[in-house]
Formats: sequence, structure tokens, C-alpha cells
Amino acid sequence: MTFTASVFIGTSLDGYIARDDGDIEWLTARGEDVGDMGFFEFLDTVDTVILGRTTYETVLAFGEEAWVYGDRRVEVLSTTIPEGADPRVTVHRDLDAMIAALDERGAKHVYPDGGRLIQSLLRAGRVDRFIIATAPVLIGGGHRLFGDLTADVRLRHEWTKTPGAGFVQTSWAVDRP
Amino acid sequence: MTFTASVFIGTSLDGYIARDDGDIEWLTARGEDVGDMGFFEFLDTVDTVILGRTTYETVLAFGEEAWVYGDRRVEVLSTTIPEGADPRVTVHRDLDAMIAALDERGAKHVYPDGGRLIQSLLRAGRVDRFIIATAPVLIGGGHRLFGDLTADVRLRHEWTKTPGAGFVQTSWAVDRP
Repeated sequence: MTFTASVFIGTSLDGYIARDDGDIEWLTARGEDVGDMGFFEFLDTVDTVILGRTTYETVLAFGEEAWVYGDRRVEVLSTTIPEGADPRVTVHRDLDAMIAALDERGAKHVYPDGGRLIQSLLRAGRVDRFIIATAPVLIGGGHRLFGDLTADVRLRHEWTKTPGAGFVQTSWAVDRP
Repeated sequence: MTFTASVFIGTSLDGYIARDDGDIEWLTARGEDVGDMGFFEFLDTVDTVILGRTTYETVLAFGEEAWVYGDRRVEVLSTTIPEGADPRVTVHRDLDAMIAALDERGAKHVYPDGGRLIQSLLRAGRVDRFIIATAPVLIGGGHRLFGDLTADVRLRHEWTKTPGAGFVQTSWAVDRP
């Protein structure tokens, strides 16, 4: 009936997903030595990608080869992007409408990307899993993966891997009462 | 000549070491099921404990059995605690003086505890290792383990354990150029 959402992301040990200016070279340069850390295997289980506006524009800026989503449904949360401008994506104006559309369409496994989108989806109670690769660095500032919450979110440890280059990758399931 | 400092601490997955009011029940309640996660084995390698003022007062408030430091040197960073009030501790008025005193005395393996003290010691370039047990919970706010930095801190992954109760414990060494 309703979808499962799994975050798949890299952070610094101090919890940042990008510097204030969006730079992720500190992450990607370290990641180059360790392959995809299971990303494409994960993506194979995903039918729908949802992106925040900034993340969508970042992916576009990286060019065609950064569009790794293939023929999966890609839906973007934005109040400003014109509808229909990019035939590959569906634009939603607010999170509730996006969630309702995904549920109605029968989306099964959703991969949300983008810090603010992930935080909003988590606060809406619709994140089911965090697969986090922690990079061996402290960057001291930037955009955080996690934000404010109205209540504690209990997690269940699923697995931990050390894929190389100093990364530690862990899967945490959100444990609902 | 100079000491090595190893942080040994627990955090939530979102990087907090305590709630805003100092509460750590979310950590200790989860930790009860998994023993000491190597804490006393670690403490056996430590000759000097350094505490921030808040952490010192928190330990005092927990009573005698919380004073786990035995006959180790315990030094407290505080501008307000009177010198000599507690015969078990040496009080230092600023971090530089504390570091100089530890170096001069020949402290070998220092265990710093307390969020602000750890952040200051890290910014001073005098933290060598972080052993972090991540608890399976997001608490959304409180006191962070990590703070602002003037430059990236490169880390080297040493080991990762899953001691139980959903914790993931990793040792990261600070990688100096």
C-alpha cells in the first residue's frame, strides 16, 4: 500500500553531507578508491527517486553521466521549477502532495536524496532506513544530514561494513512502535 | 615527550552526547544491555583524565560510584572551581596551561571527557583518537560532540565493532600530516 523509503548517503564523521557552498569533493575524492559502496546494487531495488530542488540542480550541473537513475521515476520537490521543463521528472509543490502521489501511484521502494528533503520526510515519519557511509574526516561545518525532530527516532542496527578507504557504512532501520 | 589523547564516548546517530538539559538516559539505558563496551579496558591504558567543568560536576552529582577514575590523575578545566576544594583533582584555569602542565608532568595517555573540552582540545590539535559508540537513536537536539573547526581534520579508521544493543563502535585516529 505505502512505500518504503531508504536513504543512501555519505557524511563526514561530524555529520555533514556537503560544505556550506555545496562542495562534496572531501567525500567524492575519498570515495573514489572504494568503488560504489553498494550504490548500484541498492539502486537496483529502487523504483522511485525523489530529489530536493538543490540536489536536482546539483545533479543536472554534473552533466548527463551524473543522471544515474536510468528509467526510474524521478520526482522533484520544488516550488520554483516549472512543470514539464524536464521530461524525465515529475515536479511536486509540497511534501504532502508528493507523498500522496507516491502512495497513490503505488511506489514501492523510494530513494530520497537531498538534506532538506530527507529531514522533512523523516519528520513526516516516512523514512524507513538510513544507509550511511561515514567518511574519515571532520569538516567542521556545512549542510547536516540530520536536523531538528519533534520526538526521538528509534533505530535498529541492520549491518555495518568497512568498504575501504577508511569508510564505515552502516544500515539503520527506523524502528516504529 | 608529549601525551596522546583518546576520546572514548557515546553519541546518538545525529551526533549528540547529551540533550540540552544534560540528560543522557537515552544513551545509558541503551548501553545497559551491552556492558562497558571496552571502557574499563580502555581506562587501564589511561594515566590522566581531564574533565570539563560541567562533566566534572555531572560525575560528582552521580555520587561516589560514578568516580571510576581510581587513583589516576584527574585534572579539571574551570575558571570557577576553587583550587584545592577536591583533593582528587587538579584545577586549571585555561586550556593552554592545562596542556603545558600535562606535557611538563609527562602525562602519557590522556582521556578527555566533556563536549566543550574535547572540541577545544581538538582545535588545539591535541586529540589523537576518537573511540565513538553510536547509539541507535536520533534525538534531534542537544550538545554536539563536534563543533566548528578552522581546518578539516583527516582521520584514519582503526577498527569497528558492533558490541550489541544496536551500537556501532569505531576507533578513528587523527591523521596528522
